[in-house]
Amino acid sequence: MKDYIREIETALERYLPEGEYEEQKLIDAVRYSLHLKGKRVRPSLTIAFAELCGTTVEMAMPFACAVEMVHTYSLIHDDLPCMDNDDFRRGKPSNHKVYGEDIALLAGDALQSIAYETMLSDEAIATVGGERAAKAARILANRSGLLGMVGGQVIDLSLEHRTVGAEIVQLMEEKKTACLIEAACMMGCVVAGAAEEQIKAAERYAHAIGLAFQIVDDILDVTSTAEELGKPIGSDAENEKNTFMSLLGIDRCREMVAELTEEAIRALDAFDGDTADLKDFAVRLANRKK
Amino acid sequence: MKDYIREIETALERYLPEGEYEEQKLIDAVRYSLHLKGKRVRPSLTIAFAELCGTTVEMAMPFACAVEMVHTYSLIHDDLPCMDNDDFRRGKPSNHKVYGEDIALLAGDALQSIAYETMLSDEAIATVGGERAAKAARILANRSGLLGMVGGQVIDLSLEHRTVGAEIVQLMEEKKTACLIEAACMMGCVVAGAAEEQIKAAERYAHAIGLAFQIVDDILDVTSTAEELGKPIGSDAENEKNTFMSLLGIDRCREMVAELTEEAIRALDAFDGDTADLKDFAVRLANRKK
Repeated sequence: MKDYIREIETALERYLPEGEYEEQKLIDAVRYSLHLKGKRVRPSLTIAFAELCGTTVEMAMPFACAVEMVHTYSLIHDDLPCMDNDDFRRGKPSNHKVYGEDIALLAGDALQSIAYETMLSDEAIATVGGERAAKAARILANRSGLLGMVGGQVIDLSLEHRTVGAEIVQLMEEKKTACLIEAACMMGCVVAGAAEEQIKAAERYAHAIGLAFQIVDDILDVTSTAEELGKPIGSDAENEKNTFMSLLGIDRCREMVAELTEEAIRALDAFDGDTADLKDFAVRLANRKK
Repeated sequence: MKDYIREIETALERYLPEGEYEEQKLIDAVRYSLHLKGKRVRPSLTIAFAELCGTTVEMAMPFACAVEMVHTYSLIHDDLPCMDNDDFRRGKPSNHKVYGEDIALLAGDALQSIAYETMLSDEAIATVGGERAAKAARILANRSGLLGMVGGQVIDLSLEHRTVGAEIVQLMEEKKTACLIEAACMMGCVVAGAAEEQIKAAERYAHAIGLAFQIVDDILDVTSTAEELGKPIGSDAENEKNTFMSLLGIDRCREMVAELTEEAIRALDAFDGDTADLKDFAVRLANRKK
């Protein structure tokens, strides 16, 4: 995919307000997690689909950044002691290790609200229209909420210390991981005023690459070396986690990744424009070694 | 004010989805806190201003409920051990005491997203139009976020173990308490398509009653008896909190409440309709004994 990372990171900074009093500490905490170097997969997908459907990077940017803000809030809350209790995120101390649990909690909360403020700003409404802005923001709320990403985390919590079937692991990952990627891709189409059929195709693409991404993750946790992966391996087995690998084995997992990648590529047939980058992205995701 | 409580509580229930798998536990947690008997002040104000500006209760309802959802998420997160660590809320065990910290955290997160889903639903957009729905949702995001309610909580955290001037306490309470009441009142006007001047008047009314409400709280914590108030008194002094009472004394506090109540009533001059209920509400708030 075209490299939108620098533009996204500049825009993320632009949407943050200045603190008026002690809120500066909160804004610092928000900024810290927003700027941990990530691959910016979700916002890049929003922009890629928006461009594919005929709109500009600028029009898509508030929505792209909003997805990244919601993703970031979920990482901050996920790392909290009452959740995964992770001290590190992307090789740096996690938010609550730097700012304290109270500020980290509030930084996550604030990131969620600023995502909506960004998508529904006067500027965004003037550019894409109230109806499209509202619809795109609704999709993000839906996929990140009760029956989407947050729901997936609840399923994940419920799987500790019990063994379930692969269909439950799939349901969990569909919600926890794929839902937000679906929102990212669908929002790009909505902002560009694409047809319902194309929004659905973007959803299918996102669902397929989201699931494939997770299965590859599970495979690499078993087959890779810590050196290749850049993080400890074997942690799933150690934690007795229900994963695609533990439940289905490597052959079926590789088969699924291939099927899902084909599915993603097929979904792109619904678009007239140049989908080479999005196809390439799906293939690289399937073949990644880390 | 007219009694909208039953309609609000029915609607709150209607906007909640059914859980598909383990998410039912999350939805139960959300429902638990949404249905703790409260006075429903914020959603009632949204509806009252919407009706004053000429629209129906039905049109205002998604926005009224969204304010209550955001208020509820803030209470759940506020009670968490890393924040106020409160075991009780409105006389019942707080959310995390019933469902655990992890689920309480996620229930708060989910309540925030469902608030936006509710305001930006196809139904809400079809009824009030995309532009108004987007603008109302933006106001809620703004007043509940970084420089609003959440910002106020950060200021509150920063005041522990130090003494500040009354203007800082006022800034904190303006953000922590008044901002969400401002959103409630302004959104009612926006949904009804009211003029900018009336939206500003609703903001002034809300700001004044929000601040008055807090000052009365501080006064009652000193002058009331636990029996009258239905909760322990003297807790502010015990916790060495910076309050309007500790910084300004009772005479100035009573004077401020009277001034703010007048200010609120004066703001209502911007409206042509019947403002008797909203006037009465401001007066009763100032004179309340618990």
